[in-house]
Amino acid sequence: MAKCVSCKKSAQIKIAFAPFCESCFLKHYQNRVERLIKKFKLIKEKDKILVAVSGGKDSMSCAHVLSKFRQRFKFEMGVLHIDVGVSDCTNENTENIIRDFCNEYKVPFYLLKIKEYLGLDIKEVSKKIRRPICSICGMVKRYALNKFARENGFNKIATGHCADDITLLFFKNWFSYYFDWIAKFKPIMPSNHPKIVTRIRPLFECLEEENLTYVKLNKIKIAGCSKYSYSVRKDKLKEILKLIDSKKPDFKINFVRALERVEIKVKEPDSIKECIKCGEPTDKEICGVCRLKM
Amino acid sequence: MAKCVSCKKSAQIKIAFAPFCESCFLKHYQNRVERLIKKFKLIKEKDKILVAVSGGKDSMSCAHVLSKFRQRFKFEMGVLHIDVGVSDCTNENTENIIRDFCNEYKVPFYLLKIKEYLGLDIKEVSKKIRRPICSICGMVKRYALNKFARENGFNKIATGHCADDITLLFFKNWFSYYFDWIAKFKPIMPSNHPKIVTRIRPLFECLEEENLTYVKLNKIKIAGCSKYSYSVRKDKLKEILKLIDSKKPDFKINFVRALERVEIKVKEPDSIKECIKCGEPTDKEICGVCRLKM
Repeated sequence: MAKCVSCKKSAQIKIAFAPFCESCFLKHYQNRVERLIKKFKLIKEKDKILVAVSGGKDSMSCAHVLSKFRQRFKFEMGVLHIDVGVSDCTNENTENIIRDFCNEYKVPFYLLKIKEYLGLDIKEVSKKIRRPICSICGMVKRYALNKFARENGFNKIATGHCADDITLLFFKNWFSYYFDWIAKFKPIMPSNHPKIVTRIRPLFECLEEENLTYVKLNKIKIAGCSKYSYSVRKDKLKEILKLIDSKKPDFKINFVRALERVEIKVKEPDSIKECIKCGEPTDKEICGVCRLKM
Repeated sequence: MAKCVSCKKSAQIKIAFAPFCESCFLKHYQNRVERLIKKFKLIKEKDKILVAVSGGKDSMSCAHVLSKFRQRFKFEMGVLHIDVGVSDCTNENTENIIRDFCNEYKVPFYLLKIKEYLGLDIKEVSKKIRRPICSICGMVKRYALNKFARENGFNKIATGHCADDITLLFFKNWFSYYFDWIAKFKPIMPSNHPKIVTRIRPLFECLEEENLTYVKLNKIKIAGCSKYSYSVRKDKLKEILKLIDSKKPDFKINFVRALERVEIKVKEPDSIKECIKCGEPTDKEICGVCRLKM
């Protein structure tokens, strides 16, 4: 029987690189997030942080671990769930699961329905302009999340992006030469325009499997995968990262730690304007969402 | 039986991503190198290019393919073999193999013995300062190569670094946070100091297996591996890259093509001085080689 790397008692948990007992794992997880928060100054006193929660293990871990840090770091938080209004992407219970979580941990809960908030039917638009739903959905959610946070007095947005997501996104964007995107893969993306809310990624150095263990141990209910869930989509690069894991379990952690330090030159660092239609920040004349509506 | 992707006759050769017949493979290989030379302006008329040749498949391919391009691009070339003077690293036949190659293809051959040229016994220094031979050897070879090229009127140095090397070096340096090195992984590294000779890497987009096929088809003799040869050393990252190959044979090619485009910020782009002891370019007061001698 493996022994906990920390207390040497018997380990029930085997995370990529080390075995843990339950209580040491939880300490390890919280310490890792806390160190990141301090190192990159993710949180300041009196911050109002809106956590974007899909209901999956990553965002639920993010909301939970931040809720535990409220007193220590003296900030306020709220949870936002975005209903994209696409039936295939909506698990009926998701809203209730997140609402229950927020009640239990005394976190204000916000629900944003894309159809009502932006007057946009993603499925219809997808058919009309013949682009896959997922390619529209990400952009629309980023837009709505930023707008909602700003309009409701939040000065930061937290997402549950973890080391697995970041590594995968690095390679996807690398092979597409989207270096301006890669340059933004940092634990904190400070606002560079009055209408853009600073983003933080407290789980930048956490692994998916750590998040899964974290929600299990804390008995946090999570929503099931929907048809288009990130985690159920097949992907060659994802397969490759799994293979790498089996050979080098610290690959992803070390990869994102290097990514924290590297600085990639971007073409137009500060060309953000306001959309002439809706006033939201964009690097074009008309923002992506307004173009969808045209 | 697989068919050649190019002429549709039967293919004898299966390179990572495509089957080829022998003559189409050779065309494909030469085209790839030629495209790179043109795209990055690696070679100009009247260039004098010194090709660093260890005797392995990569550097022999580099010397051979460049020798074929002499007329087309109107440049002169020489071949330099560096004898590091470490018996474990020296294959007795290497010098003869390279000399024969140079005779056959009418290329001036230069031999540089580190012991005589720099008055430095790498094996002794390695013992004295307790650093592994390989960690010293690379630095000493870079120093000698640059000095020799400059002193002998060459305005460019060509090395046989291929996509496999570059990808592996990327990850090695990434995990060590050596981003200033990664920033230099380009098909051409222009001189940034009067004493530094421009470096070109004509095989930047070629695979090791392509080089091996190229030397076989051209019946070019290559030297066997020595004890410390790069290719015989065990390496976890190399194993991982092999695994990736099996899933995504175009990974390395696409990886280096992205690397050609990305621009990484470096800390001190132009802090090159001349060593106060030997006058060679260095970013320190005293260069690495002179420090070895102290």
